[in-house]
Amino acid sequence: MEKGTLALAITGGSDNWSPARWKARFGEVCADRRVVLLPDDACAPDDVAYAAVWKPRHGVLAALPALRVIFNLGAGVDALVADPTLPDLPVVRVADADLTGRMTEYVVLHVLAHHRRLFALRADQQRHLWQPREQWAAGALGVGIMGLGVLGADAAQVLRRLGFQVAGWSAHPKSIEGVACFAGREQLSAFLRRTNILVCLLPLTPQTRHILDRALFAQLDRTSPLGAPVLINAGRGGLQVERDILACLDDGTLGGATLDVFETEPLPPDSPLWSHPGLVVTPHNAADTDPDAIAAYVAAQIARFEAGEPLQNVVDPARGY
Amino acid sequence: MEKGTLALAITGGSDNWSPARWKARFGEVCADRRVVLLPDDACAPDDVAYAAVWKPRHGVLAALPALRVIFNLGAGVDALVADPTLPDLPVVRVADADLTGRMTEYVVLHVLAHHRRLFALRADQQRHLWQPREQWAAGALGVGIMGLGVLGADAAQVLRRLGFQVAGWSAHPKSIEGVACFAGREQLSAFLRRTNILVCLLPLTPQTRHILDRALFAQLDRTSPLGAPVLINAGRGGLQVERDILACLDDGTLGGATLDVFETEPLPPDSPLWSHPGLVVTPHNAADTDPDAIAAYVAAQIARFEAGEPLQNVVDPARGY
Repeated sequence: MEKGTLALAITGGSDNWSPARWKARFGEVCADRRVVLLPDDACAPDDVAYAAVWKPRHGVLAALPALRVIFNLGAGVDALVADPTLPDLPVVRVADADLTGRMTEYVVLHVLAHHRRLFALRADQQRHLWQPREQWAAGALGVGIMGLGVLGADAAQVLRRLGFQVAGWSAHPKSIEGVACFAGREQLSAFLRRTNILVCLLPLTPQTRHILDRALFAQLDRTSPLGAPVLINAGRGGLQVERDILACLDDGTLGGATLDVFETEPLPPDSPLWSHPGLVVTPHNAADTDPDAIAAYVAAQIARFEAGEPLQNVVDPARGY
Repeated sequence: MEKGTLALAITGGSDNWSPARWKARFGEVCADRRVVLLPDDACAPDDVAYAAVWKPRHGVLAALPALRVIFNLGAGVDALVADPTLPDLPVVRVADADLTGRMTEYVVLHVLAHHRRLFALRADQQRHLWQPREQWAAGALGVGIMGLGVLGADAAQVLRRLGFQVAGWSAHPKSIEGVACFAGREQLSAFLRRTNILVCLLPLTPQTRHILDRALFAQLDRTSPLGAPVLINAGRGGLQVERDILACLDDGTLGGATLDVFETEPLPPDSPLWSHPGLVVTPHNAADTDPDAIAAYVAAQIARFEAGEPLQNVVDPARGY
């Protein structure tokens, strides 16, 4: 029997990994299967059994009647589930060790950079100023992580190993050793009141959109040696209210922020976020997907599926993650 | 019986922790004992049983005939053992968990900053440039730590947890789980050849002075995605040849460096190190001593000593650490 075609529907990938490069990579790991790139390549829609997608155009997947599984080439499925014509099929998201490790690198780097006053020290360097600043140990700060999935739990463990007081908040109750876990809207304030550096790794859903606003920032703790609290958002731009972030940095409600994601990406050149002195902007590269690792992951999931084993990391479309 | 006086001989402390503040702090934790500040306070030299020192003036300790133990208020004893009149007494150095944790924070921060191209991304931000750069995972890089004492071993474990390939080098053989350990001059080249980010935490001794020179940098690996290797020195300024660092940054032998220590401190305002684009300069604050933790540590060591138990973290003056 002919093996079902794998269709790729990819928009908005990074310059380094164009759709054509993804196709070449999948061609290698799925060498016994036809791999086509939609909408450019000719293909018989009836032959397409699998789709690997990143922000596919709405309607593309609905036009594939033999489709069996959809693979999302990243951790966040918000762009995919926003397609009102999305077929009622299993959606598998990427959750591999490579992606997790990269996000933990990013979170640990930016927590430490704010904690250790790296950007103030860099400004001193530019002025040739030898000015040792008061420095507290990690244990003096509470780091709070919103979103305790695979990514949040991994970052929490390394931050804890570094000595920070780590807490976490999630929509549904979780338990992580050594991490104070809070859940649901009713426990959000208690979580915020003990947090000096807030790390957001939440999925974007109707419930979390614009959750990072002034009302939330105002509840963060201000009594640590860090002084005003710090925000790090590596989840989705839609989680944040950017005008609130700027206003809170201006009036001292926030002491600093690192943003990897934005309401509009790429961030427009005239955005005031670029040049605010308290803001660190990175171009949505907290956790790049490694095409080698991800193509291998998808191929392994297809092999599991065809062997009758359950798919892993299947998204619940009702929850949105 | 009267308890022996504790004498403090401190020069070169940070602005935040002047000798007077150290005296006040020790007065609290050694409330049952006389605490004097040398050379200012009047004291009977015959009563001084303990000395807690930081870079004491040569000869100060030799003038205390009843002295029993010398406590060095930091991890590095190079300034102390350089005193040719140093009495032949036990020298205890600080090696507490607070100091270790702070150094690990610094090492992890700067390894991640170079690995994740933070400074290039900050330059992009200044130009309002959304330019995702190719990013590799931690596992693509070898981090090599010179100096595998308490500090080096702790940093090695966190870096390993983050996914880096970690190796270590020390004068005498060590064994750390998951870390490739090299020892002695005869294994130095093999260690360097697998290292992309070199972290130096060595003590300063006649054997290690100026070890960080062009001949050493030229042996570092250049084949990783990082390209040219990176140096991080948080040990002592005397370990490095600064003109070689600048020349190697200029000709690409090194791709970047973070220096916390310098041949002359404070680093003079006209030093070319301040403004080299590949250099990150911090004002010798990688691992600030926490006076609270250190005073408590010294008080606990004195209590052990007076109870007849062995002192901990005693320096071997012949080795110099």
